[in-house]
Amino acid sequence: MERIEHHASFGGWQDVYRHESSTLGCTMNFAVYLPPQAARAGARLPVLYWLSGLTCTEQNFITKAGAQRHAAEHGIVVVAPDTSPRGEEVPDAEGYDLGKGAGFYVNATESPWAHRYRIYDYVVDELPALVEAHFPVSDARAVSGHSMGGHGALTIALRNPGRYRSVSAFSPIVAPSQVPWGEKAFAAYLGPDREAWKAWDATELVKSAPEKLPLLIDQGADDEFLDLQLRPQLLQAAAEAAGHPLTLRLRPGYDHSYYFIASFIDEHIAHHARALLA
Amino acid sequence: MERIEHHASFGGWQDVYRHESSTLGCTMNFAVYLPPQAARAGARLPVLYWLSGLTCTEQNFITKAGAQRHAAEHGIVVVAPDTSPRGEEVPDAEGYDLGKGAGFYVNATESPWAHRYRIYDYVVDELPALVEAHFPVSDARAVSGHSMGGHGALTIALRNPGRYRSVSAFSPIVAPSQVPWGEKAFAAYLGPDREAWKAWDATELVKSAPEKLPLLIDQGADDEFLDLQLRPQLLQAAAEAAGHPLTLRLRPGYDHSYYFIASFIDEHIAHHARALLA
Repeated sequence: MERIEHHASFGGWQDVYRHESSTLGCTMNFAVYLPPQAARAGARLPVLYWLSGLTCTEQNFITKAGAQRHAAEHGIVVVAPDTSPRGEEVPDAEGYDLGKGAGFYVNATESPWAHRYRIYDYVVDELPALVEAHFPVSDARAVSGHSMGGHGALTIALRNPGRYRSVSAFSPIVAPSQVPWGEKAFAAYLGPDREAWKAWDATELVKSAPEKLPLLIDQGADDEFLDLQLRPQLLQAAAEAAGHPLTLRLRPGYDHSYYFIASFIDEHIAHHARALLA
Repeated sequence: MERIEHHASFGGWQDVYRHESSTLGCTMNFAVYLPPQAARAGARLPVLYWLSGLTCTEQNFITKAGAQRHAAEHGIVVVAPDTSPRGEEVPDAEGYDLGKGAGFYVNATESPWAHRYRIYDYVVDELPALVEAHFPVSDARAVSGHSMGGHGALTIALRNPGRYRSVSAFSPIVAPSQVPWGEKAFAAYLGPDREAWKAWDATELVKSAPEKLPLLIDQGADDEFLDLQLRPQLLQAAAEAAGHPLTLRLRPGYDHSYYFIASFIDEHIAHHARALLA
C-alpha cells in the first residue's frame, strides 16, 4: 500500500492510497480522510464509506463534496473507493454506463466481467479489512453514496445486517432491475435471469430485510435522471409495504450534481455521526 | 450573455455565463453564485470577485472551494472569471505558466500578447459593469484569489483605491518581479523594462498605496511553491516599512491545493462580509 496524495484539510489529512487488490486483480486507488481526532494517541474512529456514481473515481467526492469540514467536526474517517476495477487488462465497454467507472457494486457472474468486476466484495470485505488494519479506526461502519453509489450503499447495507450502523444515499438508483442503467448493467454483469438480479436491487431487498436499518435518502426534485433512472417512489412503496423505515426528502430545484451533494452532506454526516458515535 | 450552467446550491444558484468580451475580443465564461438572499424583491447584494491561479478556468473555484455555503450564510454574490482570454485565435505559449490559463491579471503591452491579454481591464472594468447591469448587486465589491489570482487580487485592490471594500489572498505571488513565474510572464507581457513591472507588483505597489486597505493573506507553510515563487515575507517587509496593515497567517501542514482554500475560505468570506455589510 502506497500513499500517493497527502493534503492537509480542515486540521486533518486528505490522503489517497494505491494498493494491489486481490479481489479485483488490479491496482486500485482509494481516498481516506483522517480528521484531526485521528492524530490522538490511541484513537479508534468510526468510518463512513462513500460510494461514488457512474464515471467517477476516488477523486470526485474528495474534491467536490466538502465533506471534510463535517467529518472533522464529528471525528469520522471517510473512505472513498474507486467505482470499478482499473487497468489495461480489465475488460471495458463502449459508453459510460458499463465497464470501467460503472462497476455497479455487484459481483459479476458473466463473461467477460466475472473475473474482475467484484466491486461488491472489494467494498464490503477487502477494503474494510485493509482500512481497519492500517488506520486508527474502530469497527463502527456507515455507508453512503450517490446515484450508482447510492444503489451500492443501500444494497450493501440491506445485504449485511449488523455490519453498518447507518446508511444514506443521494439521488440513488433504487430499483436497478426496472430502469435502463440497471437493466443494461445487470444483463451484462449478471446475465438474463432477472431472478438473480433481485439480490442486488434495494427495492427487492427491502421487502425481506431482516434488520430494519433506517434508510435516509435525499433526492433533487429537478434531477435530470429522476423519472427515468432513479424513481425513488418504487423503493418508498416497497419500504412502506414492508414496514421498513425510510426518510425520502425531495429537494426542490436541486439537480444530480455534486452541488446538490455539497449542499446537504452536512446533514448526512450528522445522521451517520449520531449512529456511529452513539 | 448566455447562461450555460444552472445548479441549485445551498439554497441559491451556482450559474455559469458565456459572453463576448469586448476587452479581450473573445468569448469568455464566468461563474456567478447567487445566494438565497438574491431572490428577495429589491435585493442589492455585495459582490466578491474571486481570481483563480495558473491553469484554472472559472470552474476550479466553484467546484472545489466550498465557498457557496459561506456566501449563502452571509448573503454575498461571488463572481469567478476565467484566467485568460480563450479561443483558437488567441496567442498561446508552451508551458502552463504563460499564455492561456496564465493571464496574470495585467494589460499586456508586448507582441503577440498586447491585443488580447488585457485581463486586468476585463476584471476591473468590463466584468463588474456586466455583473452590475444584470444581477441584483450593489457597488460594494471585494476581491480575493489564489496564487496568480492572489497576485491579481492584491494588485487590483492596491491600484484602485476606493473601488474595493476588502481584499484577501490565498498563497499569493506577492512579488512577481522577483520570482520565476512572474519574471517569465512579465518579460513576455510587459517587455524587458523592469520599471514597467512595478505597476503590477504588490510588493512595489504597497510602498506608496494612497489607501491603506488591510491585506489578509493565508499561506500554507508546506506549500511546494513557497520559497521559490511566493515568498510572502517580501510583501510583509514592504508593508511593514510603509505602515500598510497586513495580516499574514502561515498555516502549518497546508499545501498549495484547493484543500487549503476549502479549509479557510469561511474565514475569508467572513472577513469580506464584515467590510461589505458594514
